[in-house]
Amino acid sequence: MRSVAQNAELALLLEVSSTPKPGNVDREREYPDLRFEQFVAGAVGAYNGLELAEAGGSVGTVFEQTIAGMSTQRGGNTQFGAILLLTPLAVAAANDELSPAGVSAVVEATTVEDAVEFYRAFDHVSVAVDDPAEDLTAPDVRLGSDAEPALREQGLTLAEIMEESAETDGIAAEWTEQFPRTFEAARRIEAHDGSVSDRASQVFLELLAEEIDTFVRTQHDDETAREVTRRAQAVLDGEEDVRELAAEFVDREINPGTTADLIAGGIFITLERGLDI
Amino acid sequence: MRSVAQNAELALLLEVSSTPKPGNVDREREYPDLRFEQFVAGAVGAYNGLELAEAGGSVGTVFEQTIAGMSTQRGGNTQFGAILLLTPLAVAAANDELSPAGVSAVVEATTVEDAVEFYRAFDHVSVAVDDPAEDLTAPDVRLGSDAEPALREQGLTLAEIMEESAETDGIAAEWTEQFPRTFEAARRIEAHDGSVSDRASQVFLELLAEEIDTFVRTQHDDETAREVTRRAQAVLDGEEDVRELAAEFVDREINPGTTADLIAGGIFITLERGLDI
Repeated sequence: MRSVAQNAELALLLEVSSTPKPGNVDREREYPDLRFEQFVAGAVGAYNGLELAEAGGSVGTVFEQTIAGMSTQRGGNTQFGAILLLTPLAVAAANDELSPAGVSAVVEATTVEDAVEFYRAFDHVSVAVDDPAEDLTAPDVRLGSDAEPALREQGLTLAEIMEESAETDGIAAEWTEQFPRTFEAARRIEAHDGSVSDRASQVFLELLAEEIDTFVRTQHDDETAREVTRRAQAVLDGEEDVRELAAEFVDREINPGTTADLIAGGIFITLERGLDI
Repeated sequence: MRSVAQNAELALLLEVSSTPKPGNVDREREYPDLRFEQFVAGAVGAYNGLELAEAGGSVGTVFEQTIAGMSTQRGGNTQFGAILLLTPLAVAAANDELSPAGVSAVVEATTVEDAVEFYRAFDHVSVAVDDPAEDLTAPDVRLGSDAEPALREQGLTLAEIMEESAETDGIAAEWTEQFPRTFEAARRIEAHDGSVSDRASQVFLELLAEEIDTFVRTQHDDETAREVTRRAQAVLDGEEDVRELAAEFVDREINPGTTADLIAGGIFITLERGLDI
């Protein structure tokens, strides 16, 4: 039997193995400076941190340690968003409460300490983020551990910090809304037939066609994010070829990473529920 | 830092990710009943057993437990040979003695208990083996744990059992000769440039061209094994296209698995020596 940490690691591995997922690294597509094998090493490195979830580690500690382990490869940010999504799911699973309500309780229970650890994780790796909106209370995440005094003074919990970003970041939105798209991804992966790779690829396209990918908006702009949504729908409608679209998105460095993160979370839930590989 | 067990798991993952490796499952090629994702799940499942090497587990126990973990997927025998090769290497690495002499000492120290555990591993998974030669002393491995009384009566150590198969099995030959091709694979992987995938693929072809793959001989016959060697050399000489050869071998179900196992062992050694991913 695989442990919670092993299922989380395996979810990261199966997500990046699933193909095609237009724009993202998968087992048939990579960038010279961001290789498939770096995602594989990132997933293996993530394990030690994920294991802390089973030892009763706090969300912040599990996240920070998992990011530290993920970063033991030269590709940089391979799975930051996926791990941010997986951490509360893994903590909930370790408590045997992997449900929307269970993971929501984990989020609600986060503290200022968790917020400090969350910021510390940004010390390990460079993450693409927008300049913070002017009305944000929380410090700029790029401060990393230097944000600690401000966080303690403001007394912000990690849940509160996520809530502030929920409108602009698809992962933060999951955190604040009981992970609806993540559980929906799991439901659809379970409903489909065939290999995990085929199922995950299909559900990836469906999610991509339904809502804009916030990572694409951050890396490019709103227009590009809308184009991605539209073209994913065109693939589903049989109007575009998925492999050609994948090649084009890789050329244009359009990486719908947030949607891939939702798939990793969805695969984790299906593994915890006993999906056979 | 990755542990010995994590490096062994990562070696299994990087081996199957390396492409092209004519005839074997890799990240671009698979069989309907033996998928890439099953190798991934096999590697993750192997971890718990590999971890026992660091806790001072015996070669037999580490091997049997690693095979049990590997078997928690539906593809069957994904990495039996690779794990048989990796086990003494991992035990040697856990002792901080990962060298030809160090791993040879691990082999020499094996006992009848290790032999019993080795046979027990065959209970977990169906492995393609020839009928035993008539002059063999050791029981048929297909007996699994039922061989225990005979093993105890004969008092055979695992090293002695491997020695009996050294002529017909490439992994057993490594066990009895200080792992020469495995360490040579590591040396060549280190000497090449580029991604681990590209290096491993190149060294795979080189090893395949140098000696017949005993798994191909077991699955098919001596003539097919010789053809594989010849055609790998033709790829190296620029006379055949590696991708066409890969497609043909997959069609003919020619899987040079022993050579892939040597690559997994070689990658493990390079990771232990600090190869950056």
